[in-house]
Amino acid sequence: MSFHAIIPAGGAGTRLWPLSRASAPKFLVDLTGAGRTMLQQTVDRLAPLAGDSITVVTGVAHEAAVREQVPQADVIAEISPRDSMAAIGLAAAVIEARDGDTVVGSFAADHLIQDEDAFRTAVRSAISAAEAGYLVTIGITPDYAATGFGYIHATEPTDVPGAFHVGEFLEKPAQATAEAYLATGEYKWNAGMFISRTSVLLGALERFQPELAAGLREIADAWDTPSRDAVVSRVWPTLTKIAIDHAIAEPLAAEGGVAVVPVEMGWSDVGDYASLRDVLDDPVQVAPGGSTQDVLLEDSPGALVYTHSKPIVVAGVENAVVVETEDVFLVTTRENAQQVKNIVGRLDEIGRSDLR
Amino acid sequence: MSFHAIIPAGGAGTRLWPLSRASAPKFLVDLTGAGRTMLQQTVDRLAPLAGDSITVVTGVAHEAAVREQVPQADVIAEISPRDSMAAIGLAAAVIEARDGDTVVGSFAADHLIQDEDAFRTAVRSAISAAEAGYLVTIGITPDYAATGFGYIHATEPTDVPGAFHVGEFLEKPAQATAEAYLATGEYKWNAGMFISRTSVLLGALERFQPELAAGLREIADAWDTPSRDAVVSRVWPTLTKIAIDHAIAEPLAAEGGVAVVPVEMGWSDVGDYASLRDVLDDPVQVAPGGSTQDVLLEDSPGALVYTHSKPIVVAGVENAVVVETEDVFLVTTRENAQQVKNIVGRLDEIGRSDLR
Repeated sequence: MSFHAIIPAGGAGTRLWPLSRASAPKFLVDLTGAGRTMLQQTVDRLAPLAGDSITVVTGVAHEAAVREQVPQADVIAEISPRDSMAAIGLAAAVIEARDGDTVVGSFAADHLIQDEDAFRTAVRSAISAAEAGYLVTIGITPDYAATGFGYIHATEPTDVPGAFHVGEFLEKPAQATAEAYLATGEYKWNAGMFISRTSVLLGALERFQPELAAGLREIADAWDTPSRDAVVSRVWPTLTKIAIDHAIAEPLAAEGGVAVVPVEMGWSDVGDYASLRDVLDDPVQVAPGGSTQDVLLEDSPGALVYTHSKPIVVAGVENAVVVETEDVFLVTTRENAQQVKNIVGRLDEIGRSDLR
Repeated sequence: MSFHAIIPAGGAGTRLWPLSRASAPKFLVDLTGAGRTMLQQTVDRLAPLAGDSITVVTGVAHEAAVREQVPQADVIAEISPRDSMAAIGLAAAVIEARDGDTVVGSFAADHLIQDEDAFRTAVRSAISAAEAGYLVTIGITPDYAATGFGYIHATEPTDVPGAFHVGEFLEKPAQATAEAYLATGEYKWNAGMFISRTSVLLGALERFQPELAAGLREIADAWDTPSRDAVVSRVWPTLTKIAIDHAIAEPLAAEGGVAVVPVEMGWSDVGDYASLRDVLDDPVQVAPGGSTQDVLLEDSPGALVYTHSKPIVVAGVENAVVVETEDVFLVTTRENAQQVKNIVGRLDEIGRSDLR
């Protein structure tokens, strides 16, 4: 069967301000200095698997930027956010209406993966398991007892090489629970990647969320007709807001219909500067705009520096995070990087909403 | 007697890089955002005492900048550095040659004083003691057991109100010694301020450093004649390099000829960003060039921020020191501010001597 990638591209990324902005969230930004944005890197990573069969689902505010960054992809623009099940479900329904039953895989637009070969090998296993009828997720082998991710319990092997039955999906755990998960070796991080046949995905949706399924089907039927806008305007705002995990993955897992392909691939959701620093090859300096500014570190191990227009010198600040953009300069540390999200709210207080 | 102020203006100020540069050391820089450089603030502070009877002694490299910043002052340009005794002694000899016996006082060009009234009251007491024949120093009442300053031991009161006999001058002490000094209340910080009659100063110099005295007298005699440059070129490079403390203050103290006027006046030698931060009225932001950039601090108490062309945001960095200048950004902390001097040497390594 052919494979079609779906890329939900949303989220504000406020913990990566000022690189990530309301007008250009992190998926539209080159966070790694690779010369490619997170979205472009996601598309590049999927191209060997999906070719140009790639659909990006994003908000209308970012539609133009997405089309410009990845002209080869189809774009579905949401008139308002209705959570991941509606986004992925609509894409799947449109793809099925056009191409018949197809294996689709959804992958966030703003994650980083260091070992792309391992990623594609895992997705190929997942596609095989999807063809066999499973809803398949990619499970990240934990590096540590993280409390910031949901977990997937992998039990017995399936008949498909590399794929295991999923016992259940688990919410973000307390520290002790996370440590217990890690000790068993059976629990994987839930990276939000789902691969399945459109027929399996939409069939599960019809059983577990029939109203949502009907609404998506109505929109998909009108999608390639002149009535698209009218139907979207009428139906989309009425759709249930629910995450794909709760809508179909958890109930299907309870029935034994979900498989997981565990993988180690240097994955990061790049939630903040600390996690970004962990996955950068050359973490000292990142020059998103091709900046060639000098960086000088004196007794400042673990620094992450984004240059723009001037040399940056750091003296005696361990794990410093220093970011210059065209219009602002941020100084923080890896340990306190989560505080950056507080800044974004406070910009209004000082009358600088323009910097959000 | 009339009073003439001498301002030795030298020193690299590398611990205040990049505000202080080789081409514009800290005395030429507005470190406080007052709109006046350290040298101008020094002259302003002395004007009520000395009027325009002010002589700045500086290196030839900075002569033009000094003349531009304080056009009312006389300037003596040293062709090479020969330490403080030669600098102050030459100024005193030139002043005496022009005006006869005069009370002169020497004050560094790059110190900050918060309570200027207390400063001038102390200098007036010192002038009275100088008229009575003492070499007088201003002693700073210690705030804490500092190990970074020399000390002055104040013993019995003199006949001049506010002035005490000096037992001896003491080098920078170990911590325990500094604490013992502090406990007695008799030890004052040596801020390098000396007030005396030119006749007392030059007379002491003739007794303790006769060769240096003769050389300075020869230059002073030629100073206002066409042979100045020839005499300076011949004699200046041969002069003994010695600090005024060792040359005359210590031997005179041993004879009972030195007095000290103790004062509390919020004095700082502004040795580094940590001490600069201590004496700034509004320590959060300093805008030397009249910058009106926003500064936003999130959980970053004790910050010192110099803005230039962009807003600066600091998140979760206690005692952060962030400096933007026209050509570079510096990030450090008060605790590690002394490391800044290491940076200046390393600029050569990365081929950026232009930033020194």
